[in-house]
Amino acid sequence: MPKLPIIHATRDVTHGRFQVEQVDLEFSNGVRRTYERLKGGGLGAVIIVPMLDDDTVLLIREYGGGVGRYELGLPKGRLDQDETAEQGANRELKEEVGYGARKLKILHNLSLSPSYMTHMAHVVLAQDLYPERLPGDEPEPPEVVPWKMSELHTLLGRDDVTEGRSIAALYMAHEYLAGRFKRS
Amino acid sequence: MPKLPIIHATRDVTHGRFQVEQVDLEFSNGVRRTYERLKGGGLGAVIIVPMLDDDTVLLIREYGGGVGRYELGLPKGRLDQDETAEQGANRELKEEVGYGARKLKILHNLSLSPSYMTHMAHVVLAQDLYPERLPGDEPEPPEVVPWKMSELHTLLGRDDVTEGRSIAALYMAHEYLAGRFKRS
Repeated sequence: MPKLPIIHATRDVTHGRFQVEQVDLEFSNGVRRTYERLKGGGLGAVIIVPMLDDDTVLLIREYGGGVGRYELGLPKGRLDQDETAEQGANRELKEEVGYGARKLKILHNLSLSPSYMTHMAHVVLAQDLYPERLPGDEPEPPEVVPWKMSELHTLLGRDDVTEGRSIAALYMAHEYLAGRFKRS
Repeated sequence: MPKLPIIHATRDVTHGRFQVEQVDLEFSNGVRRTYERLKGGGLGAVIIVPMLDDDTVLLIREYGGGVGRYELGLPKGRLDQDETAEQGANRELKEEVGYGARKLKILHNLSLSPSYMTHMAHVVLAQDLYPERLPGDEPEPPEVVPWKMSELHTLLGRDDVTEGRSIAALYMAHEYLAGRFKRS
């Protein structure tokens, strides 16, 4: 497990990359409420399930600034201008995992918190991988950790595997690869 | 599917219930970065997997102010002062689903975004249910939708099932009930 970064300082800010929006709503029963939600900036995001072979997924271990520890999960990132979800997934894969993919398929979209965040991410299954690395903007290269899809349940009890979207995307890919996933 | 609420107005705000914190970090390789993260206010949260019987989970359909449509997922909520996770889960269950539980078990914790949110929620399996309703603060009573755990894969392709934490908690409960889940 990598050594935790040193925290030199923390400070509260009232601006930054998170934008808050108030929405005045009237429900169909006439009840009125004002909800607050976080607006996800940018062009959308991707979460990638990179399959090294039919039963091996490549996870990454990366420092999570939100939770203040290293987290094991799927590679992900935001889309750049003029990039499709598949192109963005392939770029992030090359930056974070050191592989490109010849086969990329969007399985579905995942929200973060449908109650109070607009944020959505495409789940992209990446197959037919080949080694290729692009320089990323990570402060340190993520550690790549192969895991057996047939052993997904052994991930669930770990204290460093907590991200709902990673777990959901892994089970989604597992059902898809088993022929049990169908878009409605 | 319920009729969508009317949106009377929206406005950007620079305050509200979301607090942003900047953190100055130095990684073990000497690289320095300033990260921004959202601080989850309050006392923590719960996401509940209510089992009506061994193969039937009770989902709710609720308007998601973040995504602007009705979402099908697990009941959840924030803990009140002086409440354990089990007590909070039972209260939310009574408010949102109209059942109490005689058996409550914390399976694990899920983060929202480990990269930039401090927020964590306990996943609570609720079993041995009995009808009991508490008044909640919802603008309209959520619709309760039973689903077969053996048919979880049929949820994944739906456009109104997108929350990573709900999907993760459902698969976690499924693995636990099948005897395949173990805390590390």
